[in-house]
Amino acid sequence: MKIVIAPDSFKGSLSSEEVAKAIRDGILRAMPAAETVLIPMADGGEGTVDSLVQATHGHKISVPVRGPLQNEVMASYGVLGDGITCVIEMASASGLVLIPEEHRNPMLATTYGTGQLIRHALDHGYRSFILALGGSATNDGGSGMLQALGLRLLDADGREIGAGGQALSHLTQIDASKWDERIIHESQFTIASDVTNPFVGPQGASYVFGPQKGATPEMVEALDAALTNFADLMAAHTGIAVHHLPGAGAAGGLGGAFQAFFPASTKRGIDVVIEMTKLNEHLQDAELVITGEGQTDAQTASGKAPMGIAQAASKLGVPVIVLSGSVGQGTEKLYEYGMTSIHSIVNGPMTLQEAMSRTPELLTQKAEQVIRTFLAGRKKEV
Amino acid sequence: MKIVIAPDSFKGSLSSEEVAKAIRDGILRAMPAAETVLIPMADGGEGTVDSLVQATHGHKISVPVRGPLQNEVMASYGVLGDGITCVIEMASASGLVLIPEEHRNPMLATTYGTGQLIRHALDHGYRSFILALGGSATNDGGSGMLQALGLRLLDADGREIGAGGQALSHLTQIDASKWDERIIHESQFTIASDVTNPFVGPQGASYVFGPQKGATPEMVEALDAALTNFADLMAAHTGIAVHHLPGAGAAGGLGGAFQAFFPASTKRGIDVVIEMTKLNEHLQDAELVITGEGQTDAQTASGKAPMGIAQAASKLGVPVIVLSGSVGQGTEKLYEYGMTSIHSIVNGPMTLQEAMSRTPELLTQKAEQVIRTFLAGRKKEV
Repeated sequence: MKIVIAPDSFKGSLSSEEVAKAIRDGILRAMPAAETVLIPMADGGEGTVDSLVQATHGHKISVPVRGPLQNEVMASYGVLGDGITCVIEMASASGLVLIPEEHRNPMLATTYGTGQLIRHALDHGYRSFILALGGSATNDGGSGMLQALGLRLLDADGREIGAGGQALSHLTQIDASKWDERIIHESQFTIASDVTNPFVGPQGASYVFGPQKGATPEMVEALDAALTNFADLMAAHTGIAVHHLPGAGAAGGLGGAFQAFFPASTKRGIDVVIEMTKLNEHLQDAELVITGEGQTDAQTASGKAPMGIAQAASKLGVPVIVLSGSVGQGTEKLYEYGMTSIHSIVNGPMTLQEAMSRTPELLTQKAEQVIRTFLAGRKKEV
Repeated sequence: MKIVIAPDSFKGSLSSEEVAKAIRDGILRAMPAAETVLIPMADGGEGTVDSLVQATHGHKISVPVRGPLQNEVMASYGVLGDGITCVIEMASASGLVLIPEEHRNPMLATTYGTGQLIRHALDHGYRSFILALGGSATNDGGSGMLQALGLRLLDADGREIGAGGQALSHLTQIDASKWDERIIHESQFTIASDVTNPFVGPQGASYVFGPQKGATPEMVEALDAALTNFADLMAAHTGIAVHHLPGAGAAGGLGGAFQAFFPASTKRGIDVVIEMTKLNEHLQDAELVITGEGQTDAQTASGKAPMGIAQAASKLGVPVIVLSGSVGQGTEKLYEYGMTSIHSIVNGPMTLQEAMSRTPELLTQKAEQVIRTFLAGRKKEV
C-alpha cells in the first residue's frame, strides 16, 4: 500500500520535511510494510524554496543583499533539480521577518534585495524563475527590485529617487535604457501568489496590507498616492496600467512591477508547488494521502497546502487525511474540496507551548491511529 | 452499516448516555444511513446502575437510608427490564462522595445503608441482585450491611457494637438468629468488583484502601486488627475464613461479608455490564464499535469499560475505536486487547476546563472524523 505524505510545515514548530518524517514513523508503526513517499509541501509562502529544493533534489545559494531597510542581509534562493529553474522567496531578501517589529516602516522598506537575487541568478545563467511573493515588509510597488535590475527612477531634477514607497511620490520619469535585457528576451517568470488585490485604491496594497507592515492611516494614504503616481508613469512607459489589475497589489505592489516589466504569469502558490513537486505523478497509484498544517480552519480553503492537495487527490479518487495542530471553525466546508477527514494531533488538554514542543511525537501517534482506523475499514468488504 | 456505540461516562463531564448520543450525532454526519445502536456502558463503578437500567429499559427506586456517617441520605437502586434483577451500587448508600473530604472517617463509616437497600429490594419481592462495590467510604468489613439485614454483632456484655470498622475490635459474638432467611434460601447475588485484595494483612482492605478514605497510619493498624478479629469470628461462625480470600478486601471488606454470608459469585465489573447489556448479541452483525472514556492510558487495561468491550468485540472480529478526553502513556499495549485505534477528542491546545465544557461538540466532531477515515478505507478493495 502506497501512502503519499505531503504536509506543509507547522509554523514555529517543525519544517514540512520534519513533519513528513514524523508522520512516516507513525504510518510504519501501524503498517510496517507500507510504501511511503515523502513530499514536503509549501503553499507559496514561507518554506516554498526548501520544499521545492528537497522535492527536486536541488540546492540553495546564499548571497548578501540589501535588506528591506538597506542593512545587509544574507538571502538565499533555490536551484531546482532540473538545474535550470530558480525559486526565490521575496521574503528572504525583503521580508517582514527581517525587521524587528519596532523598526517596521513601509514608507522606507525596499524590494531592492529581491532584485539583487534575480540579478545574481541571471548572472549565473539561470533564466527560469519562480517568485514567491508572501511575507513582504515592503510597499514600494516593486520599485526597488526594478532599480536593482537596471531601471532608473528619476525625480524632477533627473536624480534617482530614494528607497521605499514614500519616494515614489517624487517620481517623474522612468529610464529603461539600462534595464536588464536578459529578463525580456531570455527569461520566463512564474509568480506564485494567492493575493488578488489591485495595485491601488481601497482594496489595493497600501490600504489592505500596509497596516500589518507598520503603516499608520496617514502613511497608508501617502503610500496609496505614491503608488498611484508610480502606476501612472509605468502605464505611460509600458502601456500596462496596473492600477486595478488583480494581483498587482501582492507584496506591496511587487506583483504590479512583474506585470508591467516582466514576461510573467501568475499562479496560485500551492499549484506551483504541486506542479514542481510532481505531486500528481506520485498520486497515481497511491491509496492514501496524508497532509497536515499547523492550524486547519476556514482559512485553509483559501489556497493553503492541504486544500490544493485535496483538490489534486480527489480528482484521482485518493482519500486525503489532514493532521493539524489545531482544528478550528468552518472545517466542514473542506470536505467539498476532497478532504476525507481532519484530525488534531493534540492527544488531550494541553497548552499551545506543550503541543508545539511535542509536535513530532504527537504527529507520529496520530498518524498511527488514523492508519489503524483506515485499515480497519479496509478489512470489511464493500 | 451497523455501528455499536458503547462508551463509558466522561467523569465530571457527561454521562455514558450523553456520550453515546454525541458520538451518534457525529456518525450520522459522516454517514446518514448508518444504523446506530447505543449501549451506554459502565465498568462496575459509578454509573453502573444507570447504564444497566437504560440498556434494559428498567427503572430506578430511591429510598432514604443511613449514610456512611449515619446521616440520612437518599440512595437508589435499579430494577432491570427483566423485572427481577436489582442493581445496587454500594456507593449510592455508603460512598465516599457522600462525605465532604474533611469529614471522612473510615473508623466510623458504615455500610448499614447498603444493607437497607438490599432489605428494601427483598421486601419488594426481588431476589436477584447485582452489587457494584466501587467507591466505598467504609472499612467496616460489611458489618453494617450485615446488621441491617438482621445479623447481631455483640460485645462481651452482649450488647450490639457500634457502627464502623473501629467497633469491630469489641466484637466477641455473632448472633444469626434474626438473619434474613430470604438471602440464603431464595436469592442470588452477583458481586461486580475488580478488586482482588484480601480482607486483612499488608495487601488487605485497611492497608491498601484505608488511606484514600482518610485513615492515618495509626487508624490503618487499628482497622486491620479489628477486621482480623471480625474475620476470626466469621470463620468460627460460618466456617469460611475470608482473611486471605481474593476480593474479600473490596469496598473496605464488604466483599468478605458477601463471601461469608451470601450465596454470591464475583465477576469483573465490566463483564457484568457486558452480560446484562447483551453487548455480545448487539455485536453479532456490527461492522464497528465506538467506545470511549474520559482518560485512556495504561490503567485502561485493568478492567475499564473500553478494555472489556475491545476483548468482546475482537473475539467477533469487530474493530473497536476508542474516543477519549485524553490519551496518556502506555496505550500501545491496548492493541493486544483488540483496540483498533485510540483518539483524543480534543481538537487543539486547550485547558482541561475548556475540553470538559466542550465535550459533546468535540465528541461529535471526532466521531465524524473517525467514521470518515474508516469509510475511506472501505472504498478500496482488500
